[in-house]
Amino acid sequence: LSSLSTRSLAADLQHKIDQKTKPAGALGHLETIALQLGMLQNTLAPYIRNPQMVIFAADHGIAATGLVNPFPQAVTAQMVQNFVAGGAAINVFCRQMGMGLTVVDVGVASDFDPILPIVHAKVAYGTANYQHGPALTAAQVTAAMQAGAGIVQNLHAQGCNTIGFGEMGIGNTSSAALLMSALLNIPLADCVGAGTGAHGEKLLQKIHVLEAVARAKQSAYGTPPDAMHVLEQIGGLEIAALVGAYRQAANFGMAILIDGFICTAALLVAHAQQPDILLACFFAHQSSEHAHGRMLQALGATPLLQLGLRLGEGTGAALALPILQAACAFVNEMASFESAAISGQTPA
Amino acid sequence: LSSLSTRSLAADLQHKIDQKTKPAGALGHLETIALQLGMLQNTLAPYIRNPQMVIFAADHGIAATGLVNPFPQAVTAQMVQNFVAGGAAINVFCRQMGMGLTVVDVGVASDFDPILPIVHAKVAYGTANYQHGPALTAAQVTAAMQAGAGIVQNLHAQGCNTIGFGEMGIGNTSSAALLMSALLNIPLADCVGAGTGAHGEKLLQKIHVLEAVARAKQSAYGTPPDAMHVLEQIGGLEIAALVGAYRQAANFGMAILIDGFICTAALLVAHAQQPDILLACFFAHQSSEHAHGRMLQALGATPLLQLGLRLGEGTGAALALPILQAACAFVNEMASFESAAISGQTPA
Repeated sequence: LSSLSTRSLAADLQHKIDQKTKPAGALGHLETIALQLGMLQNTLAPYIRNPQMVIFAADHGIAATGLVNPFPQAVTAQMVQNFVAGGAAINVFCRQMGMGLTVVDVGVASDFDPILPIVHAKVAYGTANYQHGPALTAAQVTAAMQAGAGIVQNLHAQGCNTIGFGEMGIGNTSSAALLMSALLNIPLADCVGAGTGAHGEKLLQKIHVLEAVARAKQSAYGTPPDAMHVLEQIGGLEIAALVGAYRQAANFGMAILIDGFICTAALLVAHAQQPDILLACFFAHQSSEHAHGRMLQALGATPLLQLGLRLGEGTGAALALPILQAACAFVNEMASFESAAISGQTPA
Repeated sequence: LSSLSTRSLAADLQHKIDQKTKPAGALGHLETIALQLGMLQNTLAPYIRNPQMVIFAADHGIAATGLVNPFPQAVTAQMVQNFVAGGAAINVFCRQMGMGLTVVDVGVASDFDPILPIVHAKVAYGTANYQHGPALTAAQVTAAMQAGAGIVQNLHAQGCNTIGFGEMGIGNTSSAALLMSALLNIPLADCVGAGTGAHGEKLLQKIHVLEAVARAKQSAYGTPPDAMHVLEQIGGLEIAALVGAYRQAANFGMAILIDGFICTAALLVAHAQQPDILLACFFAHQSSEHAHGRMLQALGATPLLQLGLRLGEGTGAALALPILQAACAFVNEMASFESAAISGQTPA
């Protein structure tokens, strides 16, 4: 689009929204969503087609130590089995919302039966423990990003224009906190939260361990920190896959539903590489995970839901889909003042 | 339920929720909704059946003066026609959410063709202008409350267990503000908002007019103000119908989706009569209407959505339905740690 036709489309969308039978602006954020979707799809009639959810699962070397995670590392693989069996929260919400669900093993630390209905794209058996060196090689990051992009290509080819992402990886709130601290230059203690359940002394231990990691990594990150170098240093493979998937989805002009703390941390990497990726992003919810609000603020993002969720798996993204659908529905289906013969607003 | 079995059901519900394959509390407000719904329905398996939306429409005598409302009074009747034609925002959202929609004329200031598919329950051709005397007689309030209750009885008989309400009435943010000020003892200027579009001088005029009304009504309200006397003094018929409908729905143990500023003001009246009505109420959203937040706070209510809506019609209530459905779905469909063979959480 030329900038002239971009301006014209924005004005035409706003005019269409303002002619609907409601006071100007009365549908609040639904109006800004409709505008953003229309611009993204280059249409006056935005729509959601074949919405999909993708979960990337991978393990983290540090989780085997138990230093940062109250659940054992084996839970990552167990939860993948739970996704396959249809018993996890994200299964329930995808069924409710009519979203397809793809589960991707991009780096779980154990083998799955090849006949399981998951995408087998394992890059490694988890990351290396970043306490003792880089979590990932540059080649591993690239491979995981390509795996993520490939999934999006397939779903786009199936007509999907709206995609939510989730993650599963015991220990990955620690990687997300390290990413946030490095890329937003925020003290680590303000980036570390309870994750799936670290409290009290366990939480202090998590902060202590991660602060030591951050200090040791500083020179490897570069000055200012380079997003890809940070990703190599602290992982993980599911986060790298998200980065590749986000970038591919944005390049296709798909609407991306950004989930919680870990998914937003992955967006920080993609955003460092491609700032206009935000045009494709819809921030599904504000997690109750400590620090997610500050991360959203740094991105200038307004979350659609604030339900106190802190589960991951893409659950917030699935729950926000009806809001995007409502934004499309009002633009496409509501009568205008003229068509409904409603008296217009008198000048204030 | 005896208080023993009530305690036991609450504990059993909480146990069921805590056994789901997620960290304890990780589904945030969805967990408290599931608990509330289970208690309301007296079951470990809460469910939404045949969800319905009801809009009560009525006019306000003061609106004919144009002193408090930027849209002309005729818009109330025009919007009822829009509801019938399916072109209003609430039509769109009810279709999306699979909710039935009933439109009730409980006091519109003009006649509708009797063949229109609305409930014809007109109590009066709008309220009297409350600048010059009571808006309603006690008999009119009772008639409107009975009309509201009757609608709920019919829908309950059709198997509906979850009901949202909306309203349409040019000028009714003024009645809501007067109700709020009187029943919560909050200065009127803090209760008056822009409504459908009063800004600047128009807003100052609205506050000025309503402050004079509130002063003149003080002795008629009683000390402390009696909710029914306030309702008689400042109306309106759609608000009285909401009060009757809420009380009937709560008595049936139905889940009530409370919409925005006007619907919450009506709940203040019902709550004054029957404080435990809150057990049945789910607060759908926080309106961008000035003062709704403070009203919710006075009720100890946590809104499900904060989308900047200020349209009424029940639009926020319809948009919140999927959240209640998600709360039921996770309780009924998610696997437990035991059934999914997931390693439990280690002690923190």
